[in-house]
Amino acid sequence: MVTTDRSNPSGAQSTQTTPLAGLQVIELSSFVAAPLGGMTLAQLGAEVIRIDPIGGGPDQHRWPITNDGASLYWAGLNKGKRSVTVDLRAEPGRDLVRQLVGSCAPGTAVVVTNSAGQDWLSYDELRRYQADLIHVQVHGHSDGTPAVDYTVNAEMGFPLVTGPANHADPVNHVLPAWDIACGLYVATGVAAATRHRELTGEGCKLTIALSDVALAMAGNLGMLAEAEVTKVQRPRIGNYLYGSFARDFSSVDGRRFMVVALTRRHWRDLLTVTETQVAVSALEDALGVDFSREDDRYEYREALAGLFDRWFSRCTSAEVEAALSATALLWAPYRTFTDVVAHLGTSAGKNPIVEQIDQPGIGSYLSPGSPLVQDGRPVRARPAPLLGTDTYPVLTERLGLQREELSRLRSAGVLPEQ
Amino acid sequence: MVTTDRSNPSGAQSTQTTPLAGLQVIELSSFVAAPLGGMTLAQLGAEVIRIDPIGGGPDQHRWPITNDGASLYWAGLNKGKRSVTVDLRAEPGRDLVRQLVGSCAPGTAVVVTNSAGQDWLSYDELRRYQADLIHVQVHGHSDGTPAVDYTVNAEMGFPLVTGPANHADPVNHVLPAWDIACGLYVATGVAAATRHRELTGEGCKLTIALSDVALAMAGNLGMLAEAEVTKVQRPRIGNYLYGSFARDFSSVDGRRFMVVALTRRHWRDLLTVTETQVAVSALEDALGVDFSREDDRYEYREALAGLFDRWFSRCTSAEVEAALSATALLWAPYRTFTDVVAHLGTSAGKNPIVEQIDQPGIGSYLSPGSPLVQDGRPVRARPAPLLGTDTYPVLTERLGLQREELSRLRSAGVLPEQ
Repeated sequence: MVTTDRSNPSGAQSTQTTPLAGLQVIELSSFVAAPLGGMTLAQLGAEVIRIDPIGGGPDQHRWPITNDGASLYWAGLNKGKRSVTVDLRAEPGRDLVRQLVGSCAPGTAVVVTNSAGQDWLSYDELRRYQADLIHVQVHGHSDGTPAVDYTVNAEMGFPLVTGPANHADPVNHVLPAWDIACGLYVATGVAAATRHRELTGEGCKLTIALSDVALAMAGNLGMLAEAEVTKVQRPRIGNYLYGSFARDFSSVDGRRFMVVALTRRHWRDLLTVTETQVAVSALEDALGVDFSREDDRYEYREALAGLFDRWFSRCTSAEVEAALSATALLWAPYRTFTDVVAHLGTSAGKNPIVEQIDQPGIGSYLSPGSPLVQDGRPVRARPAPLLGTDTYPVLTERLGLQREELSRLRSAGVLPEQ
Repeated sequence: MVTTDRSNPSGAQSTQTTPLAGLQVIELSSFVAAPLGGMTLAQLGAEVIRIDPIGGGPDQHRWPITNDGASLYWAGLNKGKRSVTVDLRAEPGRDLVRQLVGSCAPGTAVVVTNSAGQDWLSYDELRRYQADLIHVQVHGHSDGTPAVDYTVNAEMGFPLVTGPANHADPVNHVLPAWDIACGLYVATGVAAATRHRELTGEGCKLTIALSDVALAMAGNLGMLAEAEVTKVQRPRIGNYLYGSFARDFSSVDGRRFMVVALTRRHWRDLLTVTETQVAVSALEDALGVDFSREDDRYEYREALAGLFDRWFSRCTSAEVEAALSATALLWAPYRTFTDVVAHLGTSAGKNPIVEQIDQPGIGSYLSPGSPLVQDGRPVRARPAPLLGTDTYPVLTERLGLQREELSRLRSAGVLPEQ
């Protein structure tokens, strides 16, 4: 296993094994997908330098923010990276980026970008500076036209089947799920390409479009095939589970619980805990159906949920939790983000992938490392850099630029104030 | 670049470069996360054998289904794999799995599983058969207790901020976003671990919990930090965009459009196209605000949307599309899944990652390959296998089992009918 200091620019203690140690990622990114891709590579041991325009990119102040206006979003998506800022509109700044790409040792360079329409950042340009470069371009649409999670989601069918059954309008997701999937595809693609480069010495150009990610997933889940093959317009069914039985229920004190019965055992347990065996059995006989079958319980979901609801609505949340805990059922209480944070502070909720970090510019708070755990050792959370904080050290270490040259570049507006 | 026939069990023509060619993945999986992880590895060139119990796993009939009951979901998530079924409850069946793991060449074996509580499938057991094994265990929670996307989502805060502002109850997502992210983490982890194995000769044990994926992303996006640092309970704001301006609008003929204004240019274009410059400017003066700032336009989002709405509600959808197309705005029409399929059939909607495949047991329909495109060559969709169809060929090719032995195993119920 390789342990490396390079992967640990924040200086925190590390005993991690780092499968992508030695990889040098240059990231020109904004918002979620490309930054998450870079951060995931950092969590696997790569050194990642995010390069922004002086003053920051379009996501520098993205909400959620602190009361002082610092972006908790930016801090969350750039953990464990180094931050360099240069004037990216002018040739001398662009040349510094090219030189940084060129300064990587053979077999190590990766560029990740979602900048659109920037020819100087293209694979064909940058490979002139690093022959075995792995280059990832994130697009909105595959033709290079822009798109964001919110527009891609509208185009792909999901908002029209999300939300209460009696609601007529689209319901957008709050989680930018397509951005997240796209960012993880970036990390997958780079990791696979590095293996290939180790074996063959060859780099490659990877492209991925946010809208293609959504299209592929709508297809992978059978949703497009359903529309095409069965001509069924998938209905909007609130919090029920399509083709099986699941729903949210409320206890007498107003706490809500999600309850899922996928297997025969789950189903038996749900009837037992809600004391509905006799009624459900009578229904089965009268209707000539078999509720141990998922499709039958989906068909009669409202009637069944109406029976179960009576038990939930007369139990306190403590009684519901105690009773469900004694079964094999899949269930969970609904939590707000505030509840999630409070739960992490309890002994039952303590989680080794989350710990208190000291985030420059913001302060101390709980922050997650990677959910991917190798050989039982979680990858610890590391703070994000302050914007531009590594500009001078990186240019000195990587390009050997001396004080006078740096000073000249600063005076010319190519570099930020120190 | 490596081109391989192994990656192409369906026999379709392939000229793909395949970064994970030669990798031998044994998958014991169900539902979304682990199968998607395996399929993503297959799309990168790995040979993937999914092993199920005889008759299929719990996801064999998962909806969406055809009118004949064939699962479009299963077909979508197992494309390009081979399918083997054996009796996994009995020792002889388990021994075939171990032998398959043992039969891989050094440096090639990967096991991906989400089977819970199966000690015989653990890393410590299986590495006895393959010393440099890469083994991925997908859990519900990191302590090994079960969870599914629907319960993880309830626990993680998102359903309480999704949906119409006036809606009191949780709104679950229909897209199993946590499963998708988890599956892509599996692929990322395996790809990174294979590079490490190429360099060091060492395998590893990877674990990932669905609930940790959700927790990490809620943290990465700043949602947990917001609750902890600012004590702000994030509000439910329907289809508005938190901290900036976006919303859905309806044309006079009832088509809906998602419109996003992130930058100053977007904002200018939105005012121009909706002919609201004068009114918005008067509002700015009267209120002492600056709507070129994202936070100001978020604060007054309802008033602003009310002004824009008047333009949308007097335009036809064709007029809206023509007008928005002439701007830099980010926008999209809302589509049903049926609309998405229809759009794929138009010249504007044609997409190289989607093509007609002939799916055994179902028929011909549009199916996506991978959204990750290497060197400009899309990874084509391949059909999923019929359940168990590769059982006898795989046992013969890999383990050298002869007709008599196979016949004995079938008679003993270890293998399915041929």
